[in-house]
Amino acid sequence: MLDFYFDFVSPFSYLANIRLAGIVQRYDIAVSYRPIEIGAAKRAIGNVGPSNRDMPVKLSHLSKDLQRWAQRYGAPLEFPPSFDARRLNTGFFYAAGKGRQAEYVSRAFHLTWGLGQAFGDEKVLREVASGWNVDEFIRYTDSEDGAHAYKKSTDEGIARQVFGVPMVVIGEEMWWGNDRLDFVAEYLESRKSN
Amino acid sequence: MLDFYFDFVSPFSYLANIRLAGIVQRYDIAVSYRPIEIGAAKRAIGNVGPSNRDMPVKLSHLSKDLQRWAQRYGAPLEFPPSFDARRLNTGFFYAAGKGRQAEYVSRAFHLTWGLGQAFGDEKVLREVASGWNVDEFIRYTDSEDGAHAYKKSTDEGIARQVFGVPMVVIGEEMWWGNDRLDFVAEYLESRKSN
Repeated sequence: MLDFYFDFVSPFSYLANIRLAGIVQRYDIAVSYRPIEIGAAKRAIGNVGPSNRDMPVKLSHLSKDLQRWAQRYGAPLEFPPSFDARRLNTGFFYAAGKGRQAEYVSRAFHLTWGLGQAFGDEKVLREVASGWNVDEFIRYTDSEDGAHAYKKSTDEGIARQVFGVPMVVIGEEMWWGNDRLDFVAEYLESRKSN
Repeated sequence: MLDFYFDFVSPFSYLANIRLAGIVQRYDIAVSYRPIEIGAAKRAIGNVGPSNRDMPVKLSHLSKDLQRWAQRYGAPLEFPPSFDARRLNTGFFYAAGKGRQAEYVSRAFHLTWGLGQAFGDEKVLREVASGWNVDEFIRYTDSEDGAHAYKKSTDEGIARQVFGVPMVVIGEEMWWGNDRLDFVAEYLESRKSN
């Protein structure tokens, strides 16, 4: 079992989710998807500096860096116009109740970081749930049950010292960042041969 | 020509310098070494958050991450007991005056991040300059000339939007991080075949 901590607000989580698909197939390992509120996880360790969006020089570099990764993965990447991923993160737990975790995560990432659609848009929420009970899903993303499940997942991540996303956890081992998935693959490879 | 911006205080710069040696040999490209005061470069873009050393959870993860990279490179890595790299950064410009840039950078990184010796130690300063005019070197690391050369290098990096280290710059292209050297190698490979 591999735990994949992410926040839909994180573009490197989008990229990691794409790369991870190949790794988990190759090593035949199950993924436990775990959305967390990354802002809360950062505050929990005192990581309260300015956000990249407040540092234009760094943000401009990061945009270019993200495009390099997207090109490497052969994936689209476009910045969404807004960054409040609360309802999309919350909606994951509705999908989980239906056993559709992987499908939900891929759809939600594709619509936002892939196609550049706004996180909070009801249009996006409706599209990510298309084929399910859309109205029930929309209500869930703003419900107390949903908020509770989201907070529980965030708190559990914080308790496990998940201070950034994407974070992959296998047993006692943790790897932070899309750019560390090579190490995850190497670890799984070495475990296979032992 | 490839510009390599670094600060001796940065362990990922240490790792990048090791990896870079192979890349520049393979693609037969000259390196211009450019030490900067990373603290000043971060302040210049408003990057004034807490340092990793103030966030034990993150620091503990970074230590492990650094060891993974060191293992991949087959290089030693040990945390020095203190982190004031001013004199070691300044001393680079003395070595540059003697045409010994690459040698100085490798020696200084090896003694500190490789072997874990303290940056400010006169013992380290003497060892890094062994075989040269050691006393002249030591004086230079605390001289106005040295301080001027160091500040000029830092200011020039800031003017080129170097907001982090290690940073590799080739023409208009920039790559931030030891973990982006694959992209540097790919870029040089593609340039070769065009």
